[in-house]
Amino acid sequence: MATEYPDRYTGPTVAEIGEHATIRAILDAAPSHRNGDDAAVLPMPNPNTRTVVTTDMLVEGRHFRLDWSRAAEIGHKAVVQNFADIEAMGARPVAVVLALSAPGHTPVDFITELARGIGERVADYSADLAGGDLTGGEHLVVSVSAIGHLGGSMPALTLDGARPGQAVVAAGRIGYSAAGLALLRRYGRDDVPAEFTELVRAHLIPATAPGRGVIARAAGASSMTDNSDGLITDLETLARRSGVGIDLAGVAIAPDELLTAAGRHLGIDPWTWVLTGGEDHTLMGTTSKDAPSGFRVIGAVHRNRPGTGPAVTVDSEPPAHSTGWDSFPRRVPSP
Amino acid sequence: MATEYPDRYTGPTVAEIGEHATIRAILDAAPSHRNGDDAAVLPMPNPNTRTVVTTDMLVEGRHFRLDWSRAAEIGHKAVVQNFADIEAMGARPVAVVLALSAPGHTPVDFITELARGIGERVADYSADLAGGDLTGGEHLVVSVSAIGHLGGSMPALTLDGARPGQAVVAAGRIGYSAAGLALLRRYGRDDVPAEFTELVRAHLIPATAPGRGVIARAAGASSMTDNSDGLITDLETLARRSGVGIDLAGVAIAPDELLTAAGRHLGIDPWTWVLTGGEDHTLMGTTSKDAPSGFRVIGAVHRNRPGTGPAVTVDSEPPAHSTGWDSFPRRVPSP
Repeated sequence: MATEYPDRYTGPTVAEIGEHATIRAILDAAPSHRNGDDAAVLPMPNPNTRTVVTTDMLVEGRHFRLDWSRAAEIGHKAVVQNFADIEAMGARPVAVVLALSAPGHTPVDFITELARGIGERVADYSADLAGGDLTGGEHLVVSVSAIGHLGGSMPALTLDGARPGQAVVAAGRIGYSAAGLALLRRYGRDDVPAEFTELVRAHLIPATAPGRGVIARAAGASSMTDNSDGLITDLETLARRSGVGIDLAGVAIAPDELLTAAGRHLGIDPWTWVLTGGEDHTLMGTTSKDAPSGFRVIGAVHRNRPGTGPAVTVDSEPPAHSTGWDSFPRRVPSP
Repeated sequence: MATEYPDRYTGPTVAEIGEHATIRAILDAAPSHRNGDDAAVLPMPNPNTRTVVTTDMLVEGRHFRLDWSRAAEIGHKAVVQNFADIEAMGARPVAVVLALSAPGHTPVDFITELARGIGERVADYSADLAGGDLTGGEHLVVSVSAIGHLGGSMPALTLDGARPGQAVVAAGRIGYSAAGLALLRRYGRDDVPAEFTELVRAHLIPATAPGRGVIARAAGASSMTDNSDGLITDLETLARRSGVGIDLAGVAIAPDELLTAAGRHLGIDPWTWVLTGGEDHTLMGTTSKDAPSGFRVIGAVHRNRPGTGPAVTVDSEPPAHSTGWDSFPRRVPSP
């Protein structure tokens, strides 16, 4: 299926102006003095700083749809999901590089808008779009890698640092992105009822508060991840890697008024969005201390009793919904 | 056109075992204790070290063909072209991350062999496959980003550091990769005459000597790049960015016996491979001092006289061939 670009992108195509002119247009849209050499040299870190790196690939039709997302929004989202992984280590995002595969008929203004979206979002973090690679391909594939700095000698916030007795904390919405996706599926981009705009926006441009990961590490958090594949799925990973169990407080994660209204409107149980939705990129971690600034308590860590039940419960019961995102969902034969 | 895997890959597919089991298989094939968290924490660098980052994307059918390249070779090549960009700054490669899009029918052993190829090649550089992302997609897309460390306060080896009077130096073969490609086009993988095996190998697994970039920077080189898009194209970029001209010594870059024999065999002028071939990932730079260890002199930098001729000449004449790689070659109407 060939990539179809909305009519809004009207200028010449990449094939018409060529690779080098397109790269110049990208550099104009997201200027950085670090960009344009064989590799980008990042700023000198403070002494005693380690580098943190992650990567995430967005494929058209799987991670975004061109009839739903503007190019700049795809750029924003690519940054957010990468930087959430940097912040989930307790590190400070510093730069991204962009590798882009695009068909020859891709409008150049689509690509420059994508780069502008990336440039805007990295600027929110005082970071840089530091370099990239542009190549032809039958499909639009956006691959972003992010670099962060982890200062000082305190350990990174890894998945294996949760300990029994700690509180589970989170900073940000849970379930909003999935609700927005459900609304887009029902209505498309332009016909979603105005009262639910915030949910659609949460899906297209997930909001994050830069710096929460660094704050959590400084405040003594011991483990962290982000809600990318689904609340239960991601916390199960954290619990399993830490060898602990997690019990979430239903009242702390319950769908709020907006999610409840959207659920009623669509005839969908909003708990599915909260428990399995993912893509909120909300930071979630554990701590023996007070919740770090901007975080709230959503549960508690307890000793794991292997074989006695799920690693993550809600009010001590197995969660009503638990299947998160899988890039290759297994085809289980029906009984 | 659906991706077709050679019969050699016989195990279950990614769709059959799912994303998480595939990721576990990748981690078994290329183990790293840095891999497996939200992001990878790289080793603490020496004091006064900056981070260098680059990215390169390989798309099936454009950058590799599955009837020519084994999976491990694609992995090797992805590492080499990224690390050449790190070395071209005078930096030391430290880690790569891999983002991979693959159709559901991709055999898991194809993916693990790709990861093993990456793991083997990064180990040559004492570096790590530190993390990654696996996603479904209609096409096979391999996106690698590389991180390097640039120690000390000497400047990086940028494209704008060439100065009149300097020597142009290079470390490695020039034209071998393009000759190998021409042989593959003529014969396919299995029927290339044995005398030309080395050329095919140079295309499929370009050889590089780890550490040459660091050596060149320590030895006082002032600019550097690598032969990725073509000798003339890449040196033109360097000359333009430095505001200088470059004259190459024909005798220093002339096709050797093997290239000459292959050219005669195929009826192709081997100078096209030398001047426009690219993908050798040979480091090329400039210096006011002796050629750094492992480098040889191939030309000289002179003052640029704008408007008086090409930025790069061979024995003071315009090169016989000069069109290098372009991801989106412009369609120039015939006269």
